[in-house]
Amino acid sequence: MPAYAELAHEALESTRDALTREYESFKAKGLALNMARGKPSRAQLDLSMPMLTCIVDVDDCTAEDGTDCRNYGVLDGIPEAKRLMAVMLDDDAEHVVVFGNSSLNIMYDTMARCWMFGTLGHMPWCKLDEVKWLCPCPGYDRHFGVTEAFGIKMIPVAMNEDGPDMDEVERLVAEDASIKGIWCVPKYSNPSGATYSDEVVRRLAGMPCAADDFRIFWDNAYGIHHLSDDATQQDQLLDIRRACDGAGNPDRCFKFASTSKVTFPGAGISAMAASSANIADMKAHMSPQIIGHDKLNQLRHVKFLHDGKGLAEHMAKHAAILRPKFELVDRKLSEGLSDIGGCTWSKPRGGYFVSFNAPAGCAKRIVELAKDAGVTMTGAGATWPYKQDPADSNIRIAPSLPPVEELDAALDVFVCCVKLAYAEKLLQD
Amino acid sequence: MPAYAELAHEALESTRDALTREYESFKAKGLALNMARGKPSRAQLDLSMPMLTCIVDVDDCTAEDGTDCRNYGVLDGIPEAKRLMAVMLDDDAEHVVVFGNSSLNIMYDTMARCWMFGTLGHMPWCKLDEVKWLCPCPGYDRHFGVTEAFGIKMIPVAMNEDGPDMDEVERLVAEDASIKGIWCVPKYSNPSGATYSDEVVRRLAGMPCAADDFRIFWDNAYGIHHLSDDATQQDQLLDIRRACDGAGNPDRCFKFASTSKVTFPGAGISAMAASSANIADMKAHMSPQIIGHDKLNQLRHVKFLHDGKGLAEHMAKHAAILRPKFELVDRKLSEGLSDIGGCTWSKPRGGYFVSFNAPAGCAKRIVELAKDAGVTMTGAGATWPYKQDPADSNIRIAPSLPPVEELDAALDVFVCCVKLAYAEKLLQD
Repeated sequence: MPAYAELAHEALESTRDALTREYESFKAKGLALNMARGKPSRAQLDLSMPMLTCIVDVDDCTAEDGTDCRNYGVLDGIPEAKRLMAVMLDDDAEHVVVFGNSSLNIMYDTMARCWMFGTLGHMPWCKLDEVKWLCPCPGYDRHFGVTEAFGIKMIPVAMNEDGPDMDEVERLVAEDASIKGIWCVPKYSNPSGATYSDEVVRRLAGMPCAADDFRIFWDNAYGIHHLSDDATQQDQLLDIRRACDGAGNPDRCFKFASTSKVTFPGAGISAMAASSANIADMKAHMSPQIIGHDKLNQLRHVKFLHDGKGLAEHMAKHAAILRPKFELVDRKLSEGLSDIGGCTWSKPRGGYFVSFNAPAGCAKRIVELAKDAGVTMTGAGATWPYKQDPADSNIRIAPSLPPVEELDAALDVFVCCVKLAYAEKLLQD
Repeated sequence: MPAYAELAHEALESTRDALTREYESFKAKGLALNMARGKPSRAQLDLSMPMLTCIVDVDDCTAEDGTDCRNYGVLDGIPEAKRLMAVMLDDDAEHVVVFGNSSLNIMYDTMARCWMFGTLGHMPWCKLDEVKWLCPCPGYDRHFGVTEAFGIKMIPVAMNEDGPDMDEVERLVAEDASIKGIWCVPKYSNPSGATYSDEVVRRLAGMPCAADDFRIFWDNAYGIHHLSDDATQQDQLLDIRRACDGAGNPDRCFKFASTSKVTFPGAGISAMAASSANIADMKAHMSPQIIGHDKLNQLRHVKFLHDGKGLAEHMAKHAAILRPKFELVDRKLSEGLSDIGGCTWSKPRGGYFVSFNAPAGCAKRIVELAKDAGVTMTGAGATWPYKQDPADSNIRIAPSLPPVEELDAALDVFVCCVKLAYAEKLLQD
C-alpha cells in the first residue's frame, strides 16, 4: 500500500471509510485500556513484596550507626540509605541526601527554595521581574507543571537523539540572565528514551551562563532502568556533577532519583545529590521544615536491595517484564504504520516510554479518537510546556501498566486511530 | 528551710558552697542523660511493633476502594486513613488530607503556600512589606523556627492556663493587618500542658481581624495524648474549625496532627483538616508538588489502629508508661524546690512536657550547669521567639525519653542546678 499522502482523493476517502468502520467496531467492544502514565504493572510491584517483611522485629529497626529508625531524627538519611541511593545517582554517599517517597516533591521543594530564599546567597527568584526556564521537548509533563506553578516562563528547545540542541541552549543561556535553569531527563529520557551524549553533558556543565545561579535540574529517573541486562544493550551516561566540577561550575546541578520504579511508586524512597555547598545550603533550609524522613522505609529498601549488584539483579527482573511490552509496541507500530508514512517513533533501550510523532496536526485527534474507543493515552501536547505542541504531533506511549494482551488490544486501537486521523487530516487539507 | 530570698548573705554563701560541692559530685559521675526533646522512649516504640507485620502479602496492599497502595496516585490519602486521622483531628473525613510522616512538614508547606501564592486568592505574603505572627509564650521552638525561616516578625503574647491572653490577641489582630496568623498548640500545650478553654477557642474563631487572610495554625499534636485513661482526668477541647464556621470565618484555621507520638516518630503519618475551600486551594497547589504520599504506611496505620476506640486503647498503653515519669518530675521538683521559693512548674494531664519557671535571670545558667554535669535540657529561651526569653526564666522539661531510673538521676542533677543558679544569682544581685 502506498503512503497516504500519495493516495488520490477517492482512494483516501474509501480508506477513511474503511477505517471508520474498523474504528466503530473497536468502539463497540467497550474497552477500558490505559497507556497514559508510566506506572509499573502489578507483576512488577509483586517483585518487591519480600521488602515488606525486611523489618518486622525490634532488632531490624537499628541503622548501622546505632540509630533507632523508629524514632525522630536524621535530617539527611541513614548512612546505608545514602550509599544505596548514591548508586542510583551515580555519585558518592557524602553528596547524597535521602528524602521521602517522591522525587517530584524534592524537585518542587528545591525550586521553591530557590524561589523563596535564593540559592547559595543569590537573589530569591521571586524577587525578579521574570524567571525563564529551558524545556527540552518533547519532555516530562510533571516537570513543566512545577515550573508553571511558579509562573516561570518556559522556553522549549529541541530534544535530539543525543540530548537537547546544545547550540540553541548555549546561545540562550549566554545572553539572557533571566534563564535560571533547564529540565533534564538525561537517560532513557521521558518520553523519547534518548540518553545524553558525553559531549552534551560536558557542554551543559561548561557553557557560559549569563545567570550566575543557573541550575540544571537533572532528573535521573531511569538511570538503572534498562530494558536488557546485557550491558552492551544499555546506555551509559556521563555524570553531570563531576562534569560541572571539572568545568569550574561545581554548584550548577541538582541530581534527583527515586525507587518509584524500582520497588513501589507509592512507597519508595527518593534522593538528591549535589555539591557540598548546595547540600549544606539545602540542609539549612530543610532544618525548619522537617526533622527527618521515614527511616524505617529507608532501612527496608537497604535490606531488600543491598547495593549496586542487588539493584542490578532486581532491575533485570523488571526488564524481563517490560521488554516484551516495548517489543510489542515497536512491532505493532511497524506492522500498522510503516506503510502509511508520516509517523515516527522511538526505540528506547530503557525507561518507560515510546515517543510517537504523528503527522502534524493529528495528535489531538488521535488521542480523542482513542479515548472515545476506551483507550486512554497521555494527553496530546503534554510533552510540551503549557500543553502546547506547535506541530500537534507528539504522543507519549506508556506501555508498562497493561498486561501484554491488553497492551496488544490497545495498540490495535491506537494504530487504527492514527490511520483514521491521518486520513481525515489529508482529506481536510 | 526558709526561702533563699530571705536568707542572710552569709547563709546564702554557705548554701551556695554546699550546692557547689554537691554539683561537683554529680559532675564527677560523668552522666549522659537527656531531657531535651519530646521523644518517645524505646518502651513506647515497642508498643507499635505489631504494625510492621500488618502489611506483608499482596492482598494486604489494597485500600477499601480497590486502590493498589503500592502504585502511584491518591493525592489526599486513602479513605480509611482519612477517617482514622479525622478522629485525631476531631473533624470529618471529608475535611481531611493525609500526608507523609511529618506534621511539621505540612505546617511549613502550608506557610510556604501562603507565602508564595497567597491563600484563597489573597496577596502572597512574600509580596508584603512585613508579615507578623502571634506566638503564645512559652511555646514550641519548631513553630517559631518555621516563621523565622520566612522572615516573619514574631510577636510574643502571654500563654495562660486557659490559652493565649485573648484580650491582647484581640487588640493586636484588630488593629494590625500585617499580623497574618497565630501558632496554637491548643491541647496539652507545648510546653505548659495547658488546654484552651471553650471561651478562648470561640474568641479566636470570632475575633475581628484587620487581615482578611488571618490564619490560625492549630497544631493539635497532643489531642489524644492523655496521661490517664480515666476520662474525668482528661482535658476536652472545643473544635476550632466548627467554631470558625459558626462565627462566619470558616476559612480561618488550618488543623494539624500526626501519629508521631502514637506509632513511630520517624515513620508515622500526618494529616491536616480545614474548610472545603482551604482543602481545594491546597490540593490545587499540591498537585504539581507530589503525586501522593506513602499509602502503604497509611494502610499499615489503619490496620493497626483501626478507629477511635483502637486509638484510645493504644494511647492508654502510652499513658501507662508516661504517667510515672510525669509523677516523678512533680515529686522531685516538689521535694527539692518547694522550700526555696521562686520556682513554679506545670502539672499537665497530657502531652509531653512540664513547663518550669525558674527565678528570673536563672534559666540560661541552670541549663548550662546541667549540660556541664551531663544532663541535656532544651536550650533556655527555646520556648520564646528568637530564643529570647525576656525573663530568662522558662525551661522545658521533657521526661518521656529516659527510663525512670535515668530520669530520676537527671532530675536530681536538675534540682541541684536550679538551687545553685538561684543562690549564685541572689549573691550577685
